[in-house]
Amino acid sequence: MKTEDYLQQKILTGIKPTGTPHFGNYFGAIKPALKYSKYFKDSLFFIADYHSLINQPKSLDLQDNIYEVAATWLACGLDPKKSLIFRQSDIPEILELAWILSCFAPKGMLNRAHAYKAFIDKNTKENKKDLESGINMGLYSYPVLMSSDILSFDSNVVPVGQDQLQHLEMCRDIAGKINHHYKNSNILTLPKALDKQELKKITGSSDNNFLENSIMGLDGQKMSKSYDNYIPLFAEEKKLRKLIMKIQTDSVGVNDPKDSNNSLIMDWYKLFATDLAREDSSFDALLNINKLVSDYKKGISWGEAKEELFQLVNKSLSGKRESYNKYMSDKKQLDKILLEGKDKARLIAKATLSRVKKVIFG
Amino acid sequence: MKTEDYLQQKILTGIKPTGTPHFGNYFGAIKPALKYSKYFKDSLFFIADYHSLINQPKSLDLQDNIYEVAATWLACGLDPKKSLIFRQSDIPEILELAWILSCFAPKGMLNRAHAYKAFIDKNTKENKKDLESGINMGLYSYPVLMSSDILSFDSNVVPVGQDQLQHLEMCRDIAGKINHHYKNSNILTLPKALDKQELKKITGSSDNNFLENSIMGLDGQKMSKSYDNYIPLFAEEKKLRKLIMKIQTDSVGVNDPKDSNNSLIMDWYKLFATDLAREDSSFDALLNINKLVSDYKKGISWGEAKEELFQLVNKSLSGKRESYNKYMSDKKQLDKILLEGKDKARLIAKATLSRVKKVIFG
Repeated sequence: MKTEDYLQQKILTGIKPTGTPHFGNYFGAIKPALKYSKYFKDSLFFIADYHSLINQPKSLDLQDNIYEVAATWLACGLDPKKSLIFRQSDIPEILELAWILSCFAPKGMLNRAHAYKAFIDKNTKENKKDLESGINMGLYSYPVLMSSDILSFDSNVVPVGQDQLQHLEMCRDIAGKINHHYKNSNILTLPKALDKQELKKITGSSDNNFLENSIMGLDGQKMSKSYDNYIPLFAEEKKLRKLIMKIQTDSVGVNDPKDSNNSLIMDWYKLFATDLAREDSSFDALLNINKLVSDYKKGISWGEAKEELFQLVNKSLSGKRESYNKYMSDKKQLDKILLEGKDKARLIAKATLSRVKKVIFG
Repeated sequence: MKTEDYLQQKILTGIKPTGTPHFGNYFGAIKPALKYSKYFKDSLFFIADYHSLINQPKSLDLQDNIYEVAATWLACGLDPKKSLIFRQSDIPEILELAWILSCFAPKGMLNRAHAYKAFIDKNTKENKKDLESGINMGLYSYPVLMSSDILSFDSNVVPVGQDQLQHLEMCRDIAGKINHHYKNSNILTLPKALDKQELKKITGSSDNNFLENSIMGLDGQKMSKSYDNYIPLFAEEKKLRKLIMKIQTDSVGVNDPKDSNNSLIMDWYKLFATDLAREDSSFDALLNINKLVSDYKKGISWGEAKEELFQLVNKSLSGKRESYNKYMSDKKQLDKILLEGKDKARLIAKATLSRVKKVIFG
């Protein structure tokens, strides 16, 4: 597909309501999604709260998490006037279509789904007597619901990580089966994955800020809540500084030259500098990065380097943090935005479902 | 439970849209359901069209089948002013609740579901390489949807055959898990099976016209569409007569005495005579049955006996057949009744779903 073709297309991005996002989510998901959504005629973002029910969360946690992700994406630049943002659980049509899809989804196919197989593997490793222990029907049939998320909105393109490519194939498979069964290829729109290759084609760019750009955490492992090595995106200044100071460094002497090619501090610095330069034209990313590289050679102390990083990160995020806090202190405003998104999104989902039901029920 | 308690309760009956009902459906399902629904404060009847999607029907078939069952039940006495009749696919809340339930339904439980296991057994017998061949996710997760049918309407009592008892237990299990997880026993109403024992308690009757009263077909096997030994409930007079004449009989001489205790004609005669007497007080069932028994002893010919049966059946069904044909020639009227049922049923389902969602999302 050429760039101009994308301009006529619809892109759908799912957001997991997993609570306070961190640096990893910011560079790995939020920034790229907001960036490439601009290439599409329509961009839809939905908070997948019904998916997270699979983990049987407590009610208050879930509601907080939903607000937090909504406020985060809005603070990071999602413009509800140009894109739609809504909650999955506000669109009943998705659940209804999901049942229809399930009647055309071979059970054998779901047996091969990654999420399910990963759980089986875990139970196998733990020598569980019942290999399906802890697996609920939500987890097992999750790719069917994901298919419905996508198909309900006639999504043409869905950004997916490597682990989701298989689920997107399942979605195409189910949609194809229904179109075939009712002998009409216009019932459901077969979606395409927006993977790294496709993305490069449409953006023409090969910069780092795209899909699945995994950020290392404080300990040098991939940043993840489960490793507890993350920095919350909107940590308050004091906490942010404290966390940055925790970055693990090597034992090179305080004033000795340091290797800027092998430094988490430097990696983060580059990411934030590039990010800031895009939003603040008075900030010269290259100049600042080169200055720090030169300081590394001269023998800047790790403490000083961290301080440089903190100043940059804080500068880069403070505006967004302020906006985030504003949203979080005004839940009514968040509700309003989500309800407006819902109203528009439902129109699309209703049209799709009604098209499908007309075919099924005549 | 005592009879008076039932008066405060809600009973839910599911109707499979399997096309033109036959004598077996009439005596085995329709008549008893209409009879015992009168013992309940509220009675709801729904046409389970989304369940039948599991068999991936052609669209026109499904729509016809839906009209046929609706017209049949109405013709048989379902009073839409006293009971609700509606289509499952008109109540999106059922599908939404089904997803919620699925997140609390252990996959291992569904592995034990009859419908699924029966399919596996069939594939095993046929030496299929893939034992799950032909099984779709709709079939597999069907007990979850059935649970949602029941729970959406706070149904207290559900008439179930022996094969459905297990599914009702699953429904209770899932509902119990959710109530327990959110520490509130009032979220979902745990339903009770209306089986033969319960039914006898409330009706105080032990007559034959209740649950799962299987009727033998023309060939002496259980009447079933799959055996092609059935008589359509509303077959036109000529066809009805022709079909009744097809009843298999033994080779006892034309004018020899015949055994009335071992005769399909007599069994059917008794059923229809009892049925007619209930609706037409001028008709004396016992008198007529005794007369035919006496004729058997005297040596009535099978042809004459069949003619007696035909006359009775035709008398018993002609009014209903007329009403059925009237409904079938006025689909708008059927649509109207189903839409009115939908409006009332949705109010209940909406209230249930909103109660559940409030608990989940806070």
